[in-house]
Formats: sequence, C-alpha cells, structure tokens
Amino acid sequence: MRLSRYFLPTMKETPAEAQIASHRLMLRAGMIRQSSAGIYSWLPLGFRVLKNIERIVREEMDAAGAQELLMPTIQPADLWRESGRYDAYGPEMLRIRDRHDREMLYGPTNEDQITEIFRDSVRSYRDLPKNLYHIQWKFRDEVRPRFGIMRGREFYMKDAYSFDLDFEASKRSYNIMFVTYLRTFARMGIRAIPMVADTGPIGGDMSHEFIVLADTGETGVFAEQALLDRDPIAEDIDLDGDLDAVVRSWTSRYAATDEKHDPAQCPVDEGQLVQARGIEVGQIFYFGTTYSEPMNCLVTLPDGTRVPIHGGSYGIGVSRLVGAIIEASHDDAGIIWPDAVAPFSVGLINLKTGSPECDAAAEDLYNQLNDAGVEVLYDDREERAGVKFAEMDLIGLPWQLTVGPRGLKNNVVELKRRATGDSREVAPDTALAEIIDSAL
Amino acid sequence: MRLSRYFLPTMKETPAEAQIASHRLMLRAGMIRQSSAGIYSWLPLGFRVLKNIERIVREEMDAAGAQELLMPTIQPADLWRESGRYDAYGPEMLRIRDRHDREMLYGPTNEDQITEIFRDSVRSYRDLPKNLYHIQWKFRDEVRPRFGIMRGREFYMKDAYSFDLDFEASKRSYNIMFVTYLRTFARMGIRAIPMVADTGPIGGDMSHEFIVLADTGETGVFAEQALLDRDPIAEDIDLDGDLDAVVRSWTSRYAATDEKHDPAQCPVDEGQLVQARGIEVGQIFYFGTTYSEPMNCLVTLPDGTRVPIHGGSYGIGVSRLVGAIIEASHDDAGIIWPDAVAPFSVGLINLKTGSPECDAAAEDLYNQLNDAGVEVLYDDREERAGVKFAEMDLIGLPWQLTVGPRGLKNNVVELKRRATGDSREVAPDTALAEIIDSAL
Repeated sequence: MRLSRYFLPTMKETPAEAQIASHRLMLRAGMIRQSSAGIYSWLPLGFRVLKNIERIVREEMDAAGAQELLMPTIQPADLWRESGRYDAYGPEMLRIRDRHDREMLYGPTNEDQITEIFRDSVRSYRDLPKNLYHIQWKFRDEVRPRFGIMRGREFYMKDAYSFDLDFEASKRSYNIMFVTYLRTFARMGIRAIPMVADTGPIGGDMSHEFIVLADTGETGVFAEQALLDRDPIAEDIDLDGDLDAVVRSWTSRYAATDEKHDPAQCPVDEGQLVQARGIEVGQIFYFGTTYSEPMNCLVTLPDGTRVPIHGGSYGIGVSRLVGAIIEASHDDAGIIWPDAVAPFSVGLINLKTGSPECDAAAEDLYNQLNDAGVEVLYDDREERAGVKFAEMDLIGLPWQLTVGPRGLKNNVVELKRRATGDSREVAPDTALAEIIDSAL
Repeated sequence: MRLSRYFLPTMKETPAEAQIASHRLMLRAGMIRQSSAGIYSWLPLGFRVLKNIERIVREEMDAAGAQELLMPTIQPADLWRESGRYDAYGPEMLRIRDRHDREMLYGPTNEDQITEIFRDSVRSYRDLPKNLYHIQWKFRDEVRPRFGIMRGREFYMKDAYSFDLDFEASKRSYNIMFVTYLRTFARMGIRAIPMVADTGPIGGDMSHEFIVLADTGETGVFAEQALLDRDPIAEDIDLDGDLDAVVRSWTSRYAATDEKHDPAQCPVDEGQLVQARGIEVGQIFYFGTTYSEPMNCLVTLPDGTRVPIHGGSYGIGVSRLVGAIIEASHDDAGIIWPDAVAPFSVGLINLKTGSPECDAAAEDLYNQLNDAGVEVLYDDREERAGVKFAEMDLIGLPWQLTVGPRGLKNNVVELKRRATGDSREVAPDTALAEIIDSAL
C-alpha cells in the first residue's frame, strides 16, 4: 500500500480526552475515530489489526474443534425471560422496542440464544460434545465509557459455547479452551495469565479470566510472582492429550482477581504475593445446567431418559485486545506491534521522493516485498524525513526499511527493528532476505 | 469436516412459514434458524457460504482500489439530523434510546457517518479520489419481514463510498464500481443485470440496481431481451482503461426497474421488451453534494478555495446474495451451489460406514483431498444410503464422491456433478485428480 493513497489520518497532537496510552496512540495513529460515547469506527490501519487478531482467534478455535456460526446482534427479550435473566441484567443491556412495540435487545452475550438453537436442533447424547462459536459485535451500555475501545459500548467479541453430557466431559471442554487461550494469546505476542475469577451475570461455578498485566488495567489482581514470571507459550500442547496436568500447572499457583481474593484464605506468603492491575482479555466459564434447565435443553440417553446438557462459555475480547496489546507494547514514540498482529510487516521509507535513484530503488523493494507476499506500507509522500520517521515509529510496524540518496551511493539501505531500535546498513538484497525470512 | 461431528441440523419437512425456494432450502439444509421475525442465526453451513460471498466482494473491492474500514452498527441520531434525513427516514429505521436517554439508531446505511469521518480527516484535493468501504450488519425494521434472509431486518451489507472533486471524477469512480459489480457477481456464478433505478432515501441523480431475474423477486423490471441474454462475464476488463465504453455497452440497452419505467417514454418496441421480476443484489448511486453540502465536507483547492466533495455510494447485499443465488440455482432435490461460493467443494459419501474396506478407501480420499486444500464434507455417519444421497443433494455441494462396497471391488468410486447430475464410475485417483483440478 502506498501511503500517498492510503486513508491514514494521523494526528500530531495528543487528544485531550484520551487518558491511557492505547487510546492516545490509536487516535494519533489514525486507527480509530469516535462516533459517539464508547462507540468507534475502525479506520483502515486499525481494521487490519482487528482482522489479524480475529484470524488468530479463529484459527485456534478451529484447531480446537470448535465450529463457527453467527448469531444476530438483536435478540428478542422473551428469550432472556426464558432463561430468567432479562430483569436481572440491569441497565447495561441496551433495550429496544421495534416498530411493532416488541421488546428486543442488543446482545451483550449469547448463552440464551445458543441454548435455544441447540435445543431446537439436537436430540441425542451422540451429538455431544459440541463447541459452537461466533465472532460478533456486542453492546454493553456502560454508564461511563472510557479508555477508547478498551471499555467501549459496542465491542467485538468471540464467544464459544460448549455442550457436554456431564461435569467430567464439560471439564475436558473447559480444559481445551483453557489451553487454546494460552496458545491464542501467546501467538499474539502477549502474556495473558489465567486467574480465578468471579462468574458475574453469566453464572456458574468455575471461571478463569486471562489477564494482561498493565498499570492502566481495570482489574485488580493478586498472584504469585512465580506465576507472573512464567512464559505462557503453550503452542506445542497436544489437545488430544492429558490437559489436566497442563491446566494444573497453571492453576496450582495462586492467582485471583480482586473479586475472588480473600486475604484471610490466601495460602501464599505476603512476600510472594504480588498485587497488581491488569486487563481482562478473555474469560471462560463452566456453568453446568444454568441455562439448559430453565430452557429445557435436553438430550436423550441410550436408556431413553432425557437430561439437561452441561454448558460452558468462553469469551475473547477481540476489539479490546487491540488496546491491550498496545498497553503492553509501546514506547514514547508510539506503538510496537508484535509481528503476528501488525497491520503491515514493513514500513518502507523513501527519504527523497522525486529523486530518480531513490524512487527506483524504493519501487523495486516495494515490488519485491509485495511479490513475496509481505505486507508493506510504502511512504512515497513528499514529506520531510523527520515527519516520515516519526509517523513510522508512531504506527509501530515491526520493520522499517529506509532508502536514501547517501546510502544508495554505497548500495546500502537502513534496516531497523522497531521493537529494539536496532538499526543496520545492509545491501538491499540482504534486507529483503532478512525481512522475507522473518515475516513469512 | 466429518458429518458425524458437524453441526448440521437438516430438516426433512418443509417448514410451513417458508414461501419461496431459498427460504425453504436454507431452513431444510440447516443453514439458518430464525431468531425472531426477520432476524436469523447463520448455522455453520450457511455461515461458510456467507463468508465465501464476503471474500469475493472484498477481493474485488480491494482490486478496485477501495480501502476497507469498519463503522459501528449504532449511530447517534444527531448525525442524521445534520445530514437532514433523520425525520425523513421513516419507521424502517430502528430508533433507540440509551441509558442516558440519548437518541441513537441502528444504521440502515452509512452515508452520514462516512461523510463525518472524511470531513474530520481530509483537507486537500490531493487526498482525492478515495473509495472507502465496510462490510457490516445493518438493520431495517421492515413492517412485514418475509422470504427468510431475502427481506430480513438484520442483514449483512457491503457499502462503499467514493469521494471525488467533481462530477467527471465521480463518474469514473461510479464506472469502476459498475464494472467491479459485473465482475463480482460473475465470479459468484450468477447473472446480475444493471438497470436504471430510483434513488430512494439515499438521494441523488443517478443509480443502477443489479438484478438477478427470478419469479420470486420483489422488483418488477422492464428490459430488452438482448440485454437479458448477454453474458455478464467481465473479468478481463482493465480498471485503469476506458470504462465509459464498457458501461455504455450495458446501459445503451433499455433496462429499468418499475419505479423508473415509463411506458410513454420507453424507446423499445413492445416485442423486444421483457417484463419480468428480479432480486436486487446491489445498487450504486451518484449523489454529488447531497451529503457534503449540509455536512460541510470540503476540500481545499490549489487556489485556496474550499469546495464540497462529490460522493457516491455502492451497496451489495451480502446476506441477500445467499438467497438470490439459491433462487437462481436449485432443483426439486435441493440447492446447486456454484463452485465459487459452495460451503464445501466435495461431499464424500461412505455408503457402508463400518466396513473396513469402505472406511479405509473413504478415509484415504478424505485425507488426500484435505491435504490438497480441497474442502470436503465427509458423510461418515451410520445412515441408509438413501438418506445420505438425499441430504447431499439437498445441501448442493458441487461434487459428490461416493465410496461403496460394490464399486471398490472393481477399484471404482462414483463421481457426480451436482449441477448436471452427470455421474461416472472412475478409479479413486482419477476422481481425485479431476476434483483437485477443478476446485483449485
């Protein structure tokens, strides 16, 4: 993509309303624009990050054997009356009346709806287990939306729902999601620690939140230092194998959100316990028959008896992750994207647009990178070098490749890694080979 | 995907509420389930088709130089007051009040919102032309939703918006979209004919609808027979070339929707004029300064004067296309998917699950097709052959590959093309080669 044609309205000034780094940087980098309180448009650069995160989530869910479908945003109120939580949900639910004065709502979550679908479609225990998920816009009418897309009102969420015959089978579905979440977040280049959490309006007996530590996080957490130091790379785990041991290795160390933390009951010495703040990027629940009993979601056993299924649900905040990753990965100059979610892999800077030598060399690199399938943002504008460097640091692409008249005389370009700032002068072919090798 | 594990709740009975073929077949094939009037969940099989259509639309929009972003579903009422159409839009707009009693709405379209974004981001004529699009859920509160997802309330639409300096430049953007639409629909395997159309609540001077002829369509059309016979394959057109001639070759023949047809003015002899019905799958508009003037969306010219941009908008009904394609392509036994949008390319039928020979041969074909990147739905259930054949015809995958004990004795399998019904006994390797060759 040529920056001269790209819709990338960056801002030089720091917007006054933005209190935290991710909100500031997303506005300044031209990733989002506010539409109304807590509701944002995703401009092309932000949209690309959102789609990259969505893709990783989807690939990992599919690898875990979950099946994707798509439920609508607008649900009938009667469905929530059937499950018994319409009146309980409170003012965060956006309640709507249609032209026929029927009560509707903008779904904040989908346990009720997926239970209805499953109940109307499945008859036999042989159809279990199933894990069905969707990635859809949700709405929670926050009384005071803040922190940009981190605590917005309209947000993009992956939510999965498991259907099993009993607690033991449900526990296995829960474990598969637990491990899948470790893999998913690790692939995005962030450390998300599972912590015992309150079940809130979803209900049920067992829940973990996956927390990215950050001073600006809204969740208070208490955890053992050893757990926070652990590297949550879990990509090699066989999902068909024994997951209990893996899950135990994470849950045997103390970690709880403040709602679940009880100092009197905490088994960890004060010296080992860390009190910190974090951002919840995912939460998983086992809630058993909380929905299947009131909604009559039953399967028939071999002996003809009918029993309610045991359910769990598993959320990942896809849009919130964009902010959480920035909170975890930025510096004073701007965003530092992990490779896997970066909107482009390479920012190509032409220091002297209009110079035949620079244009030819930059165009050649641009074409070769595109041909190799590497996503490049090519700054071909007639702008000062300082502006180009500052904007490229701001938007935080993993590689910066700079072509200038002085270097070209010696047949070198500058190759910089945004994360470390390491910069070297190398021959164009060497730079290409290194980028292509790392990006694919 | 193994059918024994797939969430595919097909129905044997024809649902009473479904009046047209696409609605009946989508319910029976387990593609959708109604949530409330005019609002549907997309089950895994339907979701795959929806995503295939979305992907083709996205690829063609990107190829046309348009840039993707994503605007929210919920918009503030004040935005529509600014453009002057909040009160005019009528009861089809779903109007909402949030917890602070602020007036919001579920967007039926996004001219106002994109104009605001563009106005707040772009200053100079040098930033033109631009074409920005998104693919997002919309809501129109139809008084009487019907025909399944064809005239639902919550629907998935691609809408693009062009920004140009004057009419001439806008006309070029319009032509690029006109030709892109021909390409897009042709890639999906359907004939969509451009016809002069009314501009309705979008406003403006010039509009074409792209119409798929179908007796169940809701749009009355009048067109020259020669135009309806024309093959709308336009994939080879160079978008950088002269598009006026291409567009003229389509628009010089008479074709109009009933709202624009005036028998007194129609230049075509009665014998050449066909009156028919069709389904609108896309519509394009040039509306000039209809939004930019009231909303003050201006760019600065070289001489310092500021002028309102000229706009157009370009919609494709992504979810409606699923139904339109079925209306255009089905028979008494079920759906006949064009290859490009089919949920899977191949339905693999094991006629005798449990027989070691059949299982081994079917598994081998299944693995080889998957390894080659071909999407296969493998019917590995213990069901009667008649049930398997009927369901495979119902869901309409382009290829059916059947493994049975009798054929295997002669080292043959049955390869059937759903569209033609042509069926041949061939060696497994021959079948594989033919499918892989056609599917990739």
